[in-house]
Amino acid sequence: MTNKRLFEINSWKLISNKLEKKEKRLQESLTSIGNGYMGMRGNFEEGYSGDFHQGTYIAGVWFPDKTRVGWWKNGYPQYFGKVINALNFIGVDIYVDGTKIDLYKENITDFHLELDMKEGILRRSFILHKGESRIQFKFERFLSIVAKEVCAIDIMVTALTGTHKIELVPYLDGDVTNEDSNYEEKFWEEISRKVEANAANLIMKTVDNPFGTPRFAVSASMVNTINHLEVTSYNEKPMYVANAYNNKLKQGETIHLQKYVAVSTSRDWEEERLGAVSDLLAKQAREKGYDSLKEEHIAAWAARWEKADVQIDGDEEAQQGIRFNIFQLFSTYYGDDARLNVGPKGFTGEKYGGATYWDTEAYIVPMYLAVAEPKVTEQLLRYRRQQLPGAEHNAKQQGLKGALYPMVTFTGVECHNEWEITFEEIHRNGAIAHAIFNYTTYTGDETYALNEGLDVLVGISRFWADRVHYSKKNDQYMIHGVTGPNEYENNVNNNWYTNKIATWTLRYTLELLDKTTSKRKTDLNIGKSELAKWQEIIDKMYFPVDEELGIFVQHDTFLDKDLQTVDTLLKEERPLNQNWSWDKILRSCFIKQADVLQGMYFLNHEFSLEEKKRNFDFYEPMTVHESSLSPCVHSILAAEIGLEEKAYEMYQRTARLDLDNYNNDTEDGLHITSMSGSWLAIVHGFAGMRTATGILSFAPFVPKGWNSYTFTINYRNRLIRVTTTSEEVKLELLSGNALKIQLYGKDILLEKEFVGKK
Amino acid sequence: MTNKRLFEINSWKLISNKLEKKEKRLQESLTSIGNGYMGMRGNFEEGYSGDFHQGTYIAGVWFPDKTRVGWWKNGYPQYFGKVINALNFIGVDIYVDGTKIDLYKENITDFHLELDMKEGILRRSFILHKGESRIQFKFERFLSIVAKEVCAIDIMVTALTGTHKIELVPYLDGDVTNEDSNYEEKFWEEISRKVEANAANLIMKTVDNPFGTPRFAVSASMVNTINHLEVTSYNEKPMYVANAYNNKLKQGETIHLQKYVAVSTSRDWEEERLGAVSDLLAKQAREKGYDSLKEEHIAAWAARWEKADVQIDGDEEAQQGIRFNIFQLFSTYYGDDARLNVGPKGFTGEKYGGATYWDTEAYIVPMYLAVAEPKVTEQLLRYRRQQLPGAEHNAKQQGLKGALYPMVTFTGVECHNEWEITFEEIHRNGAIAHAIFNYTTYTGDETYALNEGLDVLVGISRFWADRVHYSKKNDQYMIHGVTGPNEYENNVNNNWYTNKIATWTLRYTLELLDKTTSKRKTDLNIGKSELAKWQEIIDKMYFPVDEELGIFVQHDTFLDKDLQTVDTLLKEERPLNQNWSWDKILRSCFIKQADVLQGMYFLNHEFSLEEKKRNFDFYEPMTVHESSLSPCVHSILAAEIGLEEKAYEMYQRTARLDLDNYNNDTEDGLHITSMSGSWLAIVHGFAGMRTATGILSFAPFVPKGWNSYTFTINYRNRLIRVTTTSEEVKLELLSGNALKIQLYGKDILLEKEFVGKK
Repeated sequence: MTNKRLFEINSWKLISNKLEKKEKRLQESLTSIGNGYMGMRGNFEEGYSGDFHQGTYIAGVWFPDKTRVGWWKNGYPQYFGKVINALNFIGVDIYVDGTKIDLYKENITDFHLELDMKEGILRRSFILHKGESRIQFKFERFLSIVAKEVCAIDIMVTALTGTHKIELVPYLDGDVTNEDSNYEEKFWEEISRKVEANAANLIMKTVDNPFGTPRFAVSASMVNTINHLEVTSYNEKPMYVANAYNNKLKQGETIHLQKYVAVSTSRDWEEERLGAVSDLLAKQAREKGYDSLKEEHIAAWAARWEKADVQIDGDEEAQQGIRFNIFQLFSTYYGDDARLNVGPKGFTGEKYGGATYWDTEAYIVPMYLAVAEPKVTEQLLRYRRQQLPGAEHNAKQQGLKGALYPMVTFTGVECHNEWEITFEEIHRNGAIAHAIFNYTTYTGDETYALNEGLDVLVGISRFWADRVHYSKKNDQYMIHGVTGPNEYENNVNNNWYTNKIATWTLRYTLELLDKTTSKRKTDLNIGKSELAKWQEIIDKMYFPVDEELGIFVQHDTFLDKDLQTVDTLLKEERPLNQNWSWDKILRSCFIKQADVLQGMYFLNHEFSLEEKKRNFDFYEPMTVHESSLSPCVHSILAAEIGLEEKAYEMYQRTARLDLDNYNNDTEDGLHITSMSGSWLAIVHGFAGMRTATGILSFAPFVPKGWNSYTFTINYRNRLIRVTTTSEEVKLELLSGNALKIQLYGKDILLEKEFVGKK
Repeated sequence: MTNKRLFEINSWKLISNKLEKKEKRLQESLTSIGNGYMGMRGNFEEGYSGDFHQGTYIAGVWFPDKTRVGWWKNGYPQYFGKVINALNFIGVDIYVDGTKIDLYKENITDFHLELDMKEGILRRSFILHKGESRIQFKFERFLSIVAKEVCAIDIMVTALTGTHKIELVPYLDGDVTNEDSNYEEKFWEEISRKVEANAANLIMKTVDNPFGTPRFAVSASMVNTINHLEVTSYNEKPMYVANAYNNKLKQGETIHLQKYVAVSTSRDWEEERLGAVSDLLAKQAREKGYDSLKEEHIAAWAARWEKADVQIDGDEEAQQGIRFNIFQLFSTYYGDDARLNVGPKGFTGEKYGGATYWDTEAYIVPMYLAVAEPKVTEQLLRYRRQQLPGAEHNAKQQGLKGALYPMVTFTGVECHNEWEITFEEIHRNGAIAHAIFNYTTYTGDETYALNEGLDVLVGISRFWADRVHYSKKNDQYMIHGVTGPNEYENNVNNNWYTNKIATWTLRYTLELLDKTTSKRKTDLNIGKSELAKWQEIIDKMYFPVDEELGIFVQHDTFLDKDLQTVDTLLKEERPLNQNWSWDKILRSCFIKQADVLQGMYFLNHEFSLEEKKRNFDFYEPMTVHESSLSPCVHSILAAEIGLEEKAYEMYQRTARLDLDNYNNDTEDGLHITSMSGSWLAIVHGFAGMRTATGILSFAPFVPKGWNSYTFTINYRNRLIRVTTTSEEVKLELLSGNALKIQLYGKDILLEKEFVGKK
């Protein structure tokens, strides 16, 4: 499966000792760093003239790019919201003997690049050869997860031989563009700039837009400390400020530059104060000093790993894969800001735009519930609650009641413009509802669900109740014209999963309403007739099934297809979406990602093992897994029904997706929202963790080739470590009160430690 | 239904005595003129500073505009071919006392604009008031249908009072753009320009493109004759050449300018010779003289009308409507060039781009068969035969065998990029096949079908045979993932019409192959197994039907819908495509245009009257007729099943579509391909003409409010005039041998004249 492996296998690091110029973008994606507040691709500080992709992104700072379509359909949104490339604040141009160094062209040796995932630090070094002379360069940088606004960069230049004129030019550059701009427009304009000795400030603002969405101002301040060199000039030009340091460097001498950057935004501060805030934060960072900033940053990462690390004994590739995924997820989101979410590329690229997809609820929530404090997940739920007016707007755009959560959004208002997705992939609404259920059953705390959650659930239920239609011919309710999770079919009727999750949402909402006060119902403007209507829909919903095969049918006419298994496809036909015309994909039986099986993953507790087996056996052989979100669901179900090898095969397809560049597109950025997949495959799959019934349960096995694996979960104020070997399962209660759990279907009381066997 | 009626009711003319500045574009569309070789909107010669749309188009001169999409689908074409706005050769700037006149701003009276449909001439006049002075202007122009390259313009300026300095500047301007350019690119560059006394030449060429499609060069030469004024200068600048005439005009004096333009293109001549050719043609035109050119042009129109005129007694609105439609159709296409076809906007606008849609075969062929010589229709068939390689390319793009004729094209290669149409609206292929059948049964001459036609039919049949799939579950062949003629449903399964026309094509192809030689079969590379496969598909094709309702079902799950009739819709919801979100349209039962009924129109002879009645009664009440192609089919069927009022109601929706701007979009150009609809409604509908069984038959009635109607058809070397009054039907054999025909189901021998009653 490996397409390109750029970095060595190492349990805690990504290490490369070779500058692969053809893979520069891939290298940049993989060495991205972030702190939830901002992040950036692994660009070089000193500039590079070959093909690369400069990318710095600030959470929640976006721009509405005017919609581009071939053929306009009524109801399309006016703009596509994009994470935009923000000002480049890591830049430090370096001149040696009057010439700017450029790794694309220079003669270098001893190249070393490493991303330290344990410490959250990016390091790089090389020796530059100039004729007979050699000069050593070392770079280190991090985005503090303690002081979120701060980026600290440390650069050392040592003359190994000879004497050289060295000039260092740390700068801030606001003249950046998005590669994927629809109409090649620039999204930024300068508000102000200022340069002084050892410091500078640049304030940029997103340009005006005709859609009434907010503009964002971003202020970056830098403060530099340097030994050895003198300030020689302050440079500035529109959208650019720099200091320049210049002096002679004799053999054996070392220049040491530390660049402290602080970034403040109008999301947190009044625009007028932005410059003062970032100036102050940058100065405070310098006063604290690079080493102290770094120490507290490393300590904070250690605390995160303590709660979330997964250790795999016997498979260092897998070990590196799972840590990389956890590291990049946490770099993207750690629940500090309810206005944020987990974008598909995080801070590692700008493709797909948008901040939020249903991936968050389907794949991120189930992991964050276990690896972080409940409030982290609660923030993700609250994000949707805040965007309820946007979701109501979307439903209205389609002439429907209630709330339709969007495919892609920053504000709740839909940004996506492709009718079969935008208007029809409405099952996404179910994932939003399910996340509330998942949170509630996991934490055991119904408070959120009964308060804010209910607003969301009622909105979604109202949407479903209006979106179904009554088919007189059949005396049943139906949902026509949808795209299920399998996006390789569009505009189908009665997608089983959609009908299922819609009905489930109505039922869950009714259950919660039953527990609430009549005042709350009045506030929600819910009367008896609406409740009765929902119950009627639940009772009379149509579900396509095939009694003979004993399966739920993906949609009305799925079984009329020419049913084939994936092994009949030629290698050169894969992936289908790059080799088949779209209509051929649509009418084929091949499934992009779990569809009926997505329902069995979400509502796992509602189905018998036999049902799971029959449906898995029917659908998985037709599934091409051409979505990075597909394998983990299959891994979990395969594990449950005893197909351990299949479970491991599916796990492998998620574990090193980006590290081995499986899909040959990691140069555009990392598949952030798919990264929880490998964690889910291990914990929900191999270890069989379930929580939906309110009781924590496990049924672990060890995949062939592994000696053991260990993970830690946070469950109802307890920290529990689970270690599975081929002989036994060890459960350790690291903190919190004793807990009744189930292991292999048997009740046990976990006090300090429990060792069980299958 | 009338949205805006700009011109007076008049049986042979469009007359307006008011310059409606707000409706300038609508006026321009309606006063378009053309001669099949080129055409133009009713722009003013002297320029206009208000909103307007300059548009001059030359048949077959197009440009591949790079595809614009929101989301790329595999298989999409690289470009969208567009009819492009060509150089403006009608322009004559006019200066009075040093100021350029501009009807948007001037004080004028006695404005008169008329399009003379009988003569094919556009005339305009007005009196300009300058202080106390008055100057009269008269303009006349035509595009010769005898000398296709020639445009002749006659301008008279008379000083009614006072003495004025007048300057006339006839020019050629190549600096034109398309309003609908995808990326706001310019499509033309200059090759050369030349100005001399009383003459000028400008040669333009389409810019290079990366798709390998041909570039076109166009040369326009003008020769001017003028009394009274002196040549004062020759102007030129890039892409522009002009003569300028300047002198004093005393009260009572008249200036008379005649501008002769000839346009040659690289479609007909080597690029090097273009200038010489157009120079020569322009000089020849001047030598022949304006009046002689005009005389022969009027005579040629008279000959066309002799064959094709429809006279309606008792309804002058209808009379004007049908003549306008015939006039504009003939201005667009009269079968002179097998490389051309009938574009949706003809020479009247640039919206939709493209040259050819299936509209030609479905709606144009049935009319041209009767109103023009067989060779005119044969040219339309041959056009598709020439484009067979393009159609094969399209099928290949979708991974399929055979030939798929495109939605939109210039070369046969698909230009449209909307998956549900491009890849799925494949029933269009059936219309191409049906036109061959239609031509053959109409003319009684199987030669074309057995020669060139068979190449096309075999290509189409191979496509169908590969596009169907075998459903094991049902032991039947099916066609999944199509869009039927009702484009308000997408990606449906087993659209009855598509399955029907596919099966019919296979059967017709087999029938013709049966009549051909084995050598021909060998040349076509057809073996027994392929023929057997086709027969198997014919025998085992699945057709959705409902026995209880006694109808053919539009597609698999149509009857599961919430079935409603159009009268339940609110006025403010119409048209649906401007008021409903696309998904709502898709899942509703409302039908854009004839779908099952399209099959009953095409294959009319295969269904019983009872079948037609049941299906019409079921589908028509759900049909919103939001395609201009819909009403005529319903009018024809309604007439057949005895719903005379419905037939007339449907006729009215096609008859004055543009003249009364029903769809509020005529400003973009005329609905050229829909214009045959009113003719079809009268001849196939009211008069009940049928030809498919090889016998000409009629069953006429007169709609309420009409006294009588008369039309002439060309049938198997005869010219037959049919006059229907409420009392009787008179059939006159104007030329040709006696013919056995059917009237109201009874055989008669038409010798000289026959009068029958219902």
